[in-house]
Amino acid sequence: MADLDLMKKLTIATSSKIVLLVFDGLGGLPPEANGLTELEAAFTPNLDKLASEGTLGQTIPIRRGITPGSGPAHLALFGYDPLTFDVGRGVLEATGIGIKVQMGDIAARGNFCTVDVDGNITDRRAGRISSEAAQPLVEKLNKIHIEGVEVEVNHVKEYRLVVVINGEGLDPSLEDTDPQKTGVPPLEVMPQDPSANLTAQFFNQWISEARKALADQEKANSLTLRGFSTDPALPVFNDVYNLNPACIAAYPMYKGVSRLVGMEVVDFEGDLVEDEFSALASNWNKYDFFFVHVKKTDSRGEDGDFAGKVAEIEAVDRILPNLLNLNPDVLVVTGDHSTPSQMRMHSWHPVPMLLWAPKSARPDDQKQFGEKNCTHGGFGTILATDLMPLMLAHAGRLEKYGA
Amino acid sequence: MADLDLMKKLTIATSSKIVLLVFDGLGGLPPEANGLTELEAAFTPNLDKLASEGTLGQTIPIRRGITPGSGPAHLALFGYDPLTFDVGRGVLEATGIGIKVQMGDIAARGNFCTVDVDGNITDRRAGRISSEAAQPLVEKLNKIHIEGVEVEVNHVKEYRLVVVINGEGLDPSLEDTDPQKTGVPPLEVMPQDPSANLTAQFFNQWISEARKALADQEKANSLTLRGFSTDPALPVFNDVYNLNPACIAAYPMYKGVSRLVGMEVVDFEGDLVEDEFSALASNWNKYDFFFVHVKKTDSRGEDGDFAGKVAEIEAVDRILPNLLNLNPDVLVVTGDHSTPSQMRMHSWHPVPMLLWAPKSARPDDQKQFGEKNCTHGGFGTILATDLMPLMLAHAGRLEKYGA
Repeated sequence: MADLDLMKKLTIATSSKIVLLVFDGLGGLPPEANGLTELEAAFTPNLDKLASEGTLGQTIPIRRGITPGSGPAHLALFGYDPLTFDVGRGVLEATGIGIKVQMGDIAARGNFCTVDVDGNITDRRAGRISSEAAQPLVEKLNKIHIEGVEVEVNHVKEYRLVVVINGEGLDPSLEDTDPQKTGVPPLEVMPQDPSANLTAQFFNQWISEARKALADQEKANSLTLRGFSTDPALPVFNDVYNLNPACIAAYPMYKGVSRLVGMEVVDFEGDLVEDEFSALASNWNKYDFFFVHVKKTDSRGEDGDFAGKVAEIEAVDRILPNLLNLNPDVLVVTGDHSTPSQMRMHSWHPVPMLLWAPKSARPDDQKQFGEKNCTHGGFGTILATDLMPLMLAHAGRLEKYGA
Repeated sequence: MADLDLMKKLTIATSSKIVLLVFDGLGGLPPEANGLTELEAAFTPNLDKLASEGTLGQTIPIRRGITPGSGPAHLALFGYDPLTFDVGRGVLEATGIGIKVQMGDIAARGNFCTVDVDGNITDRRAGRISSEAAQPLVEKLNKIHIEGVEVEVNHVKEYRLVVVINGEGLDPSLEDTDPQKTGVPPLEVMPQDPSANLTAQFFNQWISEARKALADQEKANSLTLRGFSTDPALPVFNDVYNLNPACIAAYPMYKGVSRLVGMEVVDFEGDLVEDEFSALASNWNKYDFFFVHVKKTDSRGEDGDFAGKVAEIEAVDRILPNLLNLNPDVLVVTGDHSTPSQMRMHSWHPVPMLLWAPKSARPDDQKQFGEKNCTHGGFGTILATDLMPLMLAHAGRLEKYGA
């Protein structure tokens, strides 16, 4: 039986409340041998108390050695194996800016790029043009009409955009047009399967018009498309888990992936973790599962800012009582992946996790929340997709399997 | 997505160098309660330094509780799940002595045996006759002609041989003829499927001729065949991992299984680990993945020689600087399986492993390389097939999965 089918079969409704608190990119590395990681270096008395009362472990986001993007990493936290539920880049990007890709739509991630007089790419990101410079170009692109389909272009950020087409008989089995190098022209949209011939034609027509519209630009005079994809029709979170879930996040990507699995995205003022915790409190009675997302640990990691990442962790630790005062039945604190500030990027390293559940957690002998402690934690090393069943179990929401 | 497909999708080429150093049968057992294993008892300052700088773990070669043969154990180290990629015994044995079994060939492992006047087996291994005694018998067998197929017989060692037939429409779905006990005659070759009827006929004809040719022998007057198999057409290592791999091994079996996955086998003078390390150094610029195989830890384990196994481990530790001076980006030291000298055979026990990668390893708090330390290592307990993705990740050779 597939894991989600098992959940569907065993979940029962109770009044218990679950909080999944995700520090984006939480896992780290020590800057020198025998040193401490960001999380180990942070002063986190509240997290350490939870660690000593709860059970620690470390999670593998996708598979060992695999560095996840944010989309797959969050799907895994929600219990959806990203290798089974393959959400295309176009859909993820669209979802990330709040556009719902319907069944039958085809979404593609686009990059403005610079080409020379021969049409060869000289900059795959159009000199990383500013959002202000890109926005009017997106408006231009939205004036293009292609017979037989509707095309909607949305700006994401800087050189990034999303193109969604809607029509009859479309198929996303298309090759990327980004050649992944400079000195050559963007590729044509090629069908991977004859069923996508028509869709390839539409996109190629649109690209040809788009290049004409951009021809007078200095930097963003062309574009590439990739990650052609349609609605992945993921099983709905509430159907699978019998939970009424809320997403509390400040950034579009995390709201997007939550919407993809059918979570309700809570609107709130501000974008600080304090604001998120306030939104949590004011929505406490409306939902029974809360995904709360902390972005800046990942941002500081990607900046290579060890001290900054430490400070972000400490800042959340200080206000953690605001969350604990709500008396959740189960609280999991973890990351979606590691972002060691030393590497300045997402990494494949296991991710520290703690599960706190006053009624049922089996405390291990670890007293602090840090990578080394988590290595020795009671859960051992687990797949991120195992977190949902564990949270449900500790919330008294899973029936016995078999007699 | 299957794991090798995921690798194929994510691997990128870099200039990094990976070394997989395999101590055959590395895992052990303490000879008395509360004692030390062979690896724990060995004085290994160089390995211990790597352990303290790197990350430890223990690997499960196939599945928990399963004792592997050398072939499957090495396939797993190369990332090929032996339960998915089932290489027949006949092919493994042929490959082990350097014979390439082509698509369409059928290979079988043969054993000379002794039968009494009634044709019942009295010794399944023909009194373990010497290689010198067996060689002329193999020459005799090679004179047999069977209409419709070509038959090639190769001697392996002592009572062991390999029979390969080549022809049209052959099928390896055949039952072993070794009854696995004495007092009964060897079985006929029986097809498991009608498609193998013809192949069974050819083998039975050949066996009948072979028995006539051996009839005058005292010990090796009959034979049994098993492990009928053809080229398993394994995915090619370089295609899967985007690595240019070299095998540095002294023994045929390990060269054979490396060839099966498409590694290049390096020729070198001598058969000591020193010679292997010299070959590693002189081929350093030609490849980017090196599988280096140390045989004698397993041999001493099978001899029941605790001190001998300790000495082999210490001998490699002493010359480890020769390897480290090459500055590999990633070094994994592990075994293919355990061979506790107390048991005198391969076992199912987890295998100690360490991964050393100065740029990206997350050190755990373990300072020595030994079974107990590995139990507490940062990787936890992993499948041997997870080593390849981990090595690739630490070598910077895997792209991010998803956006």
